[in-house]
Amino acid sequence: MLQAIELSQSTRLINHGPTVLLSAKHGGVENVMAVGWSCALDYAPARITAVLDKGAFTRGLVEASGWFALQVPLAGQAATVMAVGSQSRNDNPAKLADCGVGLFYQEGFDVPLVQGCAAYLVCRLLPEPHNQQNYDLFIGEVAAAWADDRVYAGGRWLFDSVPDDLKTLHYVGNGQFFRTGKGLKVE
Amino acid sequence: MLQAIELSQSTRLINHGPTVLLSAKHGGVENVMAVGWSCALDYAPARITAVLDKGAFTRGLVEASGWFALQVPLAGQAATVMAVGSQSRNDNPAKLADCGVGLFYQEGFDVPLVQGCAAYLVCRLLPEPHNQQNYDLFIGEVAAAWADDRVYAGGRWLFDSVPDDLKTLHYVGNGQFFRTGKGLKVE
Repeated sequence: MLQAIELSQSTRLINHGPTVLLSAKHGGVENVMAVGWSCALDYAPARITAVLDKGAFTRGLVEASGWFALQVPLAGQAATVMAVGSQSRNDNPAKLADCGVGLFYQEGFDVPLVQGCAAYLVCRLLPEPHNQQNYDLFIGEVAAAWADDRVYAGGRWLFDSVPDDLKTLHYVGNGQFFRTGKGLKVE
Repeated sequence: MLQAIELSQSTRLINHGPTVLLSAKHGGVENVMAVGWSCALDYAPARITAVLDKGAFTRGLVEASGWFALQVPLAGQAATVMAVGSQSRNDNPAKLADCGVGLFYQEGFDVPLVQGCAAYLVCRLLPEPHNQQNYDLFIGEVAAAWADDRVYAGGRWLFDSVPDDLKTLHYVGNGQFFRTGKGLKVE
């Protein structure tokens, strides 16, 4: 079940460097892309970066609406992550259906979210035209965040006690991911 | 043993979102910090981002010299990562010795590297004063890269066949890391 996460704690959801899905909507058109290059940028206010290629259909939705969401997919969704990362809605308007992506909305935000993920960060775009144009680099400020309490509870990822399908993903390239592995605590 | 990595392949060394160490030198002064928020930005030219707090001693070395290195530490180095991430050379000029960090240099680059890491990316700073001042966000262009062939060979991470101490690290907070885990290939 999704639990709201305090904004000041929200970047912790991506601090371990997982591969994410990025979703957006404009003019009634929704889309989802895979993003290998997304990162936390600040705690307070909570901000993140994401690199969005100029050819990405979703980039246009982000620029037009000023909103997007990051979501942290689970290992059980790896095939979906590859699918949405391997085709563009520019070429296939039925991309989401073809990739088996189901969307939902949280109250108060007209930003589509992908069903079944570990965590969600709804972000308002902080327009930085120089970064967007020259580096394909987008900055978002987190407006709301949720995590699935099967895998994240009490401010902690539960990777040491969940089955492999409920771990998060770290993409390398050519279809190769690694799951998040064993915990290691330094006192 | 370290093997040179082609620049076009170098961002693959951090594509899975590991926690990194960032090192730099200016005026004969060397330092190393831990960076939780570093990310690939482009393949060609190979570029990366790193978030460096204004209080970080190493940030001054990067700004003054225009050079820095990212290195990907191994799980066996987790205590060192925490140590260099928990104290500043501003407070302790003997930080590196106290943290047990040994440095070395690769020919052609006057940028210190931390012994024993999985991979190294020597980067030239691309000055972006607006990003640095407003977001603590630094962009580097990779000038050279190496990886330890015990853990990375033939363009691949060997995490599925190495012992736990030779996996890389993903930091969450409060001393909690996760190691990189099991591979998952989507064909």
